[in-house]
Amino acid sequence: MTRFEPRQKLWLEADGRLVMSDYRLRLLQLVADTGSLAQAAAVMGLSYRRAWGKVKELEANLGFPLVRSEVGGAGGGHTELSGEGRNLLDAYRRFGQRMEEALQAAYREELSPLERCPENPPPGT
Amino acid sequence: MTRFEPRQKLWLEADGRLVMSDYRLRLLQLVADTGSLAQAAAVMGLSYRRAWGKVKELEANLGFPLVRSEVGGAGGGHTELSGEGRNLLDAYRRFGQRMEEALQAAYREELSPLERCPENPPPGT
Repeated sequence: MTRFEPRQKLWLEADGRLVMSDYRLRLLQLVADTGSLAQAAAVMGLSYRRAWGKVKELEANLGFPLVRSEVGGAGGGHTELSGEGRNLLDAYRRFGQRMEEALQAAYREELSPLERCPENPPPGT
Repeated sequence: MTRFEPRQKLWLEADGRLVMSDYRLRLLQLVADTGSLAQAAAVMGLSYRRAWGKVKELEANLGFPLVRSEVGGAGGGHTELSGEGRNLLDAYRRFGQRMEEALQAAYREELSPLERCPENPPPGT
């Protein structure tokens, strides 16, 4: 049978510049979960420098901070989401969930009726 | 004001292989409109060979023909969509329209509440 798989890639721009994507959502969620940009970067297989660059690029494009960092202290540095960063992440996650549901509904109603059974199914099926 | 622009890219796979995308929809729609793969390719800025390759790749992945060609004759060759090709294009176009509507709705409900007016608007606005 020809079974279609609908695919989508989502992102968010402001003034034509990237301000959020699924990839960056994951990085920032890992920062929130681990309290550390270094750990979040390691999980994503990114250098600290590259992960830091991605966060700072989004912040520059947004015009507000996504994360707050405390340097040093007993347990080393600590990074957490800003209030605005948390709000944007939550909203973007809900946006993505709605779009995933929409993708499945649009596929089911428009494309799945075209899927066909094979004219010559293999023996025993 | 930080005004967000939601963006999406859609495509369709079967068994992990590309069978339709917005770009290929446009190419095939131009074939239907002009009756000529050469003209469709020219409008898209593609070589004939490259446009032909894109159509044949989709057909191989789908397992059925998207276009039918007649060679030669008084006005040169003629290419038109197959019945199955027409059905797939129509369904994919409706799928894309639904997803565009879903994108705007999801943006409006989840992301637009985060948009802010500038704290210091320029004089005269």
